[in-house]
Amino acid sequence: MSLPILDSINDIRGVIENLPGPDASAEAAANEREPQLTKPAGSLGRLEQIATWLATWQRSHPPALGTVAVHVFAGNHGVTKQGVSAFPSEVTAQMVGNFQAGGAAINQLCKAQGAALQVFPLELDNPTADFSESPAMNEGEFVTAFNVGWNSVHSNMDLLCVGEMGIGNTTAAAAIAHALFGGTGEDWAGPGTGVSGEALSHKASVISAAVETHQGAMTDGLEILRHVGGRELAAMAGAIVAARIQGVPVVLDGYVATAAAGPIAVCAEGALDHCIAGHVSKEPGHRRLLEKLGLDPLLDLDMRLGEASGAAVAIGIIRAAHACHTGMATFAEAGVADKDA
Amino acid sequence: MSLPILDSINDIRGVIENLPGPDASAEAAANEREPQLTKPAGSLGRLEQIATWLATWQRSHPPALGTVAVHVFAGNHGVTKQGVSAFPSEVTAQMVGNFQAGGAAINQLCKAQGAALQVFPLELDNPTADFSESPAMNEGEFVTAFNVGWNSVHSNMDLLCVGEMGIGNTTAAAAIAHALFGGTGEDWAGPGTGVSGEALSHKASVISAAVETHQGAMTDGLEILRHVGGRELAAMAGAIVAARIQGVPVVLDGYVATAAAGPIAVCAEGALDHCIAGHVSKEPGHRRLLEKLGLDPLLDLDMRLGEASGAAVAIGIIRAAHACHTGMATFAEAGVADKDA
Repeated sequence: MSLPILDSINDIRGVIENLPGPDASAEAAANEREPQLTKPAGSLGRLEQIATWLATWQRSHPPALGTVAVHVFAGNHGVTKQGVSAFPSEVTAQMVGNFQAGGAAINQLCKAQGAALQVFPLELDNPTADFSESPAMNEGEFVTAFNVGWNSVHSNMDLLCVGEMGIGNTTAAAAIAHALFGGTGEDWAGPGTGVSGEALSHKASVISAAVETHQGAMTDGLEILRHVGGRELAAMAGAIVAARIQGVPVVLDGYVATAAAGPIAVCAEGALDHCIAGHVSKEPGHRRLLEKLGLDPLLDLDMRLGEASGAAVAIGIIRAAHACHTGMATFAEAGVADKDA
Repeated sequence: MSLPILDSINDIRGVIENLPGPDASAEAAANEREPQLTKPAGSLGRLEQIATWLATWQRSHPPALGTVAVHVFAGNHGVTKQGVSAFPSEVTAQMVGNFQAGGAAINQLCKAQGAALQVFPLELDNPTADFSESPAMNEGEFVTAFNVGWNSVHSNMDLLCVGEMGIGNTTAAAAIAHALFGGTGEDWAGPGTGVSGEALSHKASVISAAVETHQGAMTDGLEILRHVGGRELAAMAGAIVAARIQGVPVVLDGYVATAAAGPIAVCAEGALDHCIAGHVSKEPGHRRLLEKLGLDPLLDLDMRLGEASGAAVAIGIIRAAHACHTGMATFAEAGVADKDA
């Protein structure tokens, strides 16, 4: 079941300020089982933490991984008028077509990882406003986009990977990160699909100027997301928040997905505790943004594609963690001598 | 088909000095396909390199991943008499029993990754000699152990993960690394299954003393492996060398598997080019050893279990690379505008 539609940015704010905390009993059950398994304590490292995290945010032990969802949200951006991307805006819709036809990287990754892909195109013929001039979205547009993600998450999902497609959206990601955490446009701008040299400097200055323009109006994380974000970013934020309520742990993809999550983190402490960073992308701002958010990525493979690809590769690690935690024999079951026995 | 048994350490040396180089035509075919796929050039990062590596060392394009093998070699070590491990030697055979019963981490990981596990116990009732006193193996013992791995690799495998189980074998790994690359025992000794404090200092001094004792006799990589290695390390070396000849790319597991590979690398330039490091373990010497060997690990998850577990988790990344390279649509097929079009 999905959650009832939210009516306003204030409703969204209220939800984020009242998110459920961790499930202490599921967490305790995972932590109790782990040291009984036939391995030196702690020797599976991060896999052990992932197993506990899964149980904690699924609010149930043992954790399940039968239903893994990958949601890719797509949007177009008025700011592309400023020449911030190497590809034309038409590519967003063309790539959505490629997703629907099964030809993109994310299709192959979902098949390989046993995950169900859903693609959500958000008014691709109606780009957001050019945020170098005016807010990317008015409140109605923002809330509508947020609800697309919010509404996409169902309580029967065991894990959700969140990603995007949108020519121009690394510019939005950099503007959000800059607005959230300061620094300069240069600190947060990167090549995206392939800009460099003067074009990259120009992209950085567009980002700096946009943040300066909207500074006074960006009074909290949600207002940052509305002013310099985009529809697919608002939708990702909606999915991330809904997942917390629905008991669905989330794997964030790259720079743009993390930038969509950032505003939630600054609205309420611990609001991203049900999220894990699937990877750190080659986009230089991503590593910095993950550090600011206290997220430690599972993978570092120089990927920078988006479309949930890094999160999808990380599913394999989460499956590994789940398989070990749920399937291994205990010392007692296997008749293996424990170190302390 | 497996390869004919080798008769002497000189035969092994001859094989390593005459390994086949990369398959240039498979490599070229992979490199030609990659930029046609529907993504910004290079945006899948390491996944693109893995796809090319697979084709190059399978000596065929497109690469295949139908048959993924995980080989775990197990041995016991006389050096455990020196009190270098937190667990008793009996645990080696107990864990082999656990592998055979399906209760260990590697069983769950192989199931999750669609890989076939084979376990090779090597004379567990007959530990190698205590190498703090005399060479771990005489030539006959060494060649016999090498042949177990050498003989385990078949040309119908598409990928081989190499790992081990053996109480005391991080001491052997550290001694090999120390003998190959200098430094001190402290540089290469780590907690293994869980020694610390004075026990760890003692382990380091056992390693230093052993390398000093055998220094003059360890005239090349293979002699290092014979003097301060162990049966499961010799067998892993055999599997790694056979895989090169059989057209089977190899995923190395942790510190001990990498230490088994190191002696091959110093015998002939490029001799490990068909190998990838599945992960860097928490055992501190592993990171240093990978650097010395020029191997860049796929994963860094604080794992330190051995039994091929890190390599097995890395299978998921290799499957992801394979799936994208072989399954994605080209720009032409998908009707997506390329950046340069």
